[in-house]
Amino acid sequence: MADFDVTVFGAGPGGYLAAERAGQAGLKTLLVEKQHIGGTCLNEGCIPTKTLLKSAKLFHACKTSQTYCVGCENVSIDQKAVVARKRAVTAQLVAGVKAGLKASKVKTVEAEGHILGRDGDGIIIEAAGTTYHTKNLILATGSHPIIPNAEGLTDAMADGFVLTSTELLELEEVPETMVVVGGGVIGLEMATYYAMVGTKVDIVEAAPKIAGDLDAEATAVIQKACEALGMTFHLNTKARTAINGVVTLDCGGQLSELKCDKVLLCIGRAPNLDGYGLETLHVPTEKGRILVDEHCLTGVPNVYAIGDCNGTGMLAHVAYRQGEVAVKHIQGIDDPMRWGCVPSLVHTEPEAAFVGETVESAKAKGIDAVGVKLPFQYSGLYIAENENGTGIIKAVFDKKKRTMIGVTLVGGPASELITICSMMIENELTVDRMKSYVYPHPTYAEIIKEAIFAAKL
Amino acid sequence: MADFDVTVFGAGPGGYLAAERAGQAGLKTLLVEKQHIGGTCLNEGCIPTKTLLKSAKLFHACKTSQTYCVGCENVSIDQKAVVARKRAVTAQLVAGVKAGLKASKVKTVEAEGHILGRDGDGIIIEAAGTTYHTKNLILATGSHPIIPNAEGLTDAMADGFVLTSTELLELEEVPETMVVVGGGVIGLEMATYYAMVGTKVDIVEAAPKIAGDLDAEATAVIQKACEALGMTFHLNTKARTAINGVVTLDCGGQLSELKCDKVLLCIGRAPNLDGYGLETLHVPTEKGRILVDEHCLTGVPNVYAIGDCNGTGMLAHVAYRQGEVAVKHIQGIDDPMRWGCVPSLVHTEPEAAFVGETVESAKAKGIDAVGVKLPFQYSGLYIAENENGTGIIKAVFDKKKRTMIGVTLVGGPASELITICSMMIENELTVDRMKSYVYPHPTYAEIIKEAIFAAKL
Repeated sequence: MADFDVTVFGAGPGGYLAAERAGQAGLKTLLVEKQHIGGTCLNEGCIPTKTLLKSAKLFHACKTSQTYCVGCENVSIDQKAVVARKRAVTAQLVAGVKAGLKASKVKTVEAEGHILGRDGDGIIIEAAGTTYHTKNLILATGSHPIIPNAEGLTDAMADGFVLTSTELLELEEVPETMVVVGGGVIGLEMATYYAMVGTKVDIVEAAPKIAGDLDAEATAVIQKACEALGMTFHLNTKARTAINGVVTLDCGGQLSELKCDKVLLCIGRAPNLDGYGLETLHVPTEKGRILVDEHCLTGVPNVYAIGDCNGTGMLAHVAYRQGEVAVKHIQGIDDPMRWGCVPSLVHTEPEAAFVGETVESAKAKGIDAVGVKLPFQYSGLYIAENENGTGIIKAVFDKKKRTMIGVTLVGGPASELITICSMMIENELTVDRMKSYVYPHPTYAEIIKEAIFAAKL
Repeated sequence: MADFDVTVFGAGPGGYLAAERAGQAGLKTLLVEKQHIGGTCLNEGCIPTKTLLKSAKLFHACKTSQTYCVGCENVSIDQKAVVARKRAVTAQLVAGVKAGLKASKVKTVEAEGHILGRDGDGIIIEAAGTTYHTKNLILATGSHPIIPNAEGLTDAMADGFVLTSTELLELEEVPETMVVVGGGVIGLEMATYYAMVGTKVDIVEAAPKIAGDLDAEATAVIQKACEALGMTFHLNTKARTAINGVVTLDCGGQLSELKCDKVLLCIGRAPNLDGYGLETLHVPTEKGRILVDEHCLTGVPNVYAIGDCNGTGMLAHVAYRQGEVAVKHIQGIDDPMRWGCVPSLVHTEPEAAFVGETVESAKAKGIDAVGVKLPFQYSGLYIAENENGTGIIKAVFDKKKRTMIGVTLVGGPASELITICSMMIENELTVDRMKSYVYPHPTYAEIIKEAIFAAKL
């Protein structure tokens, strides 16, 4: 029986980073991964979709190049090559992660890990037939797409008519028509890819709005842009069945049918909890997720849960941060997870990003909040680079503290700009302080400055 | 004789913003502009070049689209249309500035302003035949391209063989060959445009390196990328004459000739000081620039100088900030110009940006500095979107304070990311604090996080 200071179940962003940090801190570390190093994010999530979107956005830019006085003929996209490039990008990144783990002296076992029980202060686990004693266990087991219990769905998935994002990322032919069930971030991102490369996309969303927690006005901008790409939205609508090339929709009891070549099922993701023996240690769970405190500790001593499996965020960057938090706690360093500045990204075209409060959420907390909304056209660079751009910024301020407490951005490199806002929010900079910076010109970032100056405080 | 609290000479970024802020603060404000509202930046600087570059980058992306599995044929660019679009973008922004001035109740006179003398606490000025009394005067007279005293240059400029950036931005035909005299930021930006749209560009730079103050390693990345676009660099070389389609080069006394269709002269810009009557008030100048303190006050009471005319930065964003600083001081508010975090941008492809110290500049100040350099490939998004990308980050830390004190970036949206670094530097955040943020994934901004974690402190 070998001994480890830290064992990590799952080598996604949270897991591999936790293992690296533990190894770098001199802790003897074991990483157990049952499917693929890099997890969902690297292999079938964030990175593959961004690689695909790079090609789709370029294809779209070529097709609409006349807007910027550039002529192009016979614009085409080679879907097989796009998928091959995605595999190469993923392979490069996975190789990088493996090199990082090796450099951090992490022992990696590619197998499913199982909890066997406690032994003194430690935990006994098993992987690939070997038993290990570990002082600490970090559960980073990730999540999987939710598959509802619908008539004929098992067959439709076996046939390849209904896909999850995992299978869709391997599709080597562009379907003519597609129904996307679920208008959340993943659905919109994949819909954007396929709409750009020429698929007629219908999006079915059970809620009255798409894009999850994204502010309603920002969502309206995104939806209009998606519609301009040819997407059709069915809000307040559920997909009942998807059988033999037909999806049955239910809008308040009124049934209708949509014919299509492919169905993408992305109604959400659920934590992976089964098969690891969590019950052996009585790891507390609720609503299918592992309960954790601000140090990612479960109720069981020396057992941590980070990333998707604890259901707090379901975002790669939350997993990364929680990997840090858990390893720091193991080292006896108090560095808790803070939730005030966790940005969310929506990779549509234009892209959206948001962090912190909206006016509504702030007022619900009793904060005397004031909002400001500006068109992105207040940035000169935005006008130079975006004909008829519809982007906006919505910034929220605490009137009493005179600080920024939330921002929603649609347009430009929103996902990059949101970190500027995070810095301002996390550090509780006053508007007077923020006004006194030198914001480089010409940039998209200037829209944040404009919003700060426009705020009525 | 009308009375004003504030009169501004020059309606470039610094001047129009100062006038707006003064007007918004309830000060009776007069803005005097002799050429065009918006100044160099809007009419023949930052914004026009970015508008042109948008088209050139798209043209280049279409021509090299196969890298991302997209096919394009017969890719062309319509230079006349590009120039027309540039005029439209400029017109839209100038209209926006005019509307802003009107909303801020600023009186605008389109004429050259002249100082006539003092009158009690105030100053007497004249514009378009009318005399005004103003309590405060803000000089925001801008700058002009330096034209050396070279043989035949006056004729060559009259012929249209030699151009400054002002005339080049109006060129409706793409020349086959061009010599760019001056490898600074403006020269590189225009060279990037023309190299992308098919001109064979030679760059002549008197110094041993291009790109001004940009870090040497970052400059090497930029230069290599420019060479890949087909540019040729002549370093340590001066252009002696440009006559009849021939530029004579002087490299350490060795003369050679370059034939070309056009010559772009961009060896620098000099403050506009002549004709305004500065001597009437004995406004102190040195080396052709107006001397100012940290509140942009000249040595003369109630007379301020902001932006290019004081020669401290020659950047639109410095002018904007100094407009704020001067108006605040007039209002009796102490809000001095800070120089530690003034970012610089280089709009090549890839773009570069830098702020704060380099290891060398920090050590020269006696700071115990440590640097870290990483390839941009540490960002997964960078790999997804950049085949064979050569971008880098160089970050500098104060070992004693454990703070970031400088960053140089090449690649991705460097000009947007640099503001994240400014926030970290200005607020003297410790590395421990910066490590504890949630950086959204996948983004280019993650390279900053990687550099922070990689720093050996």
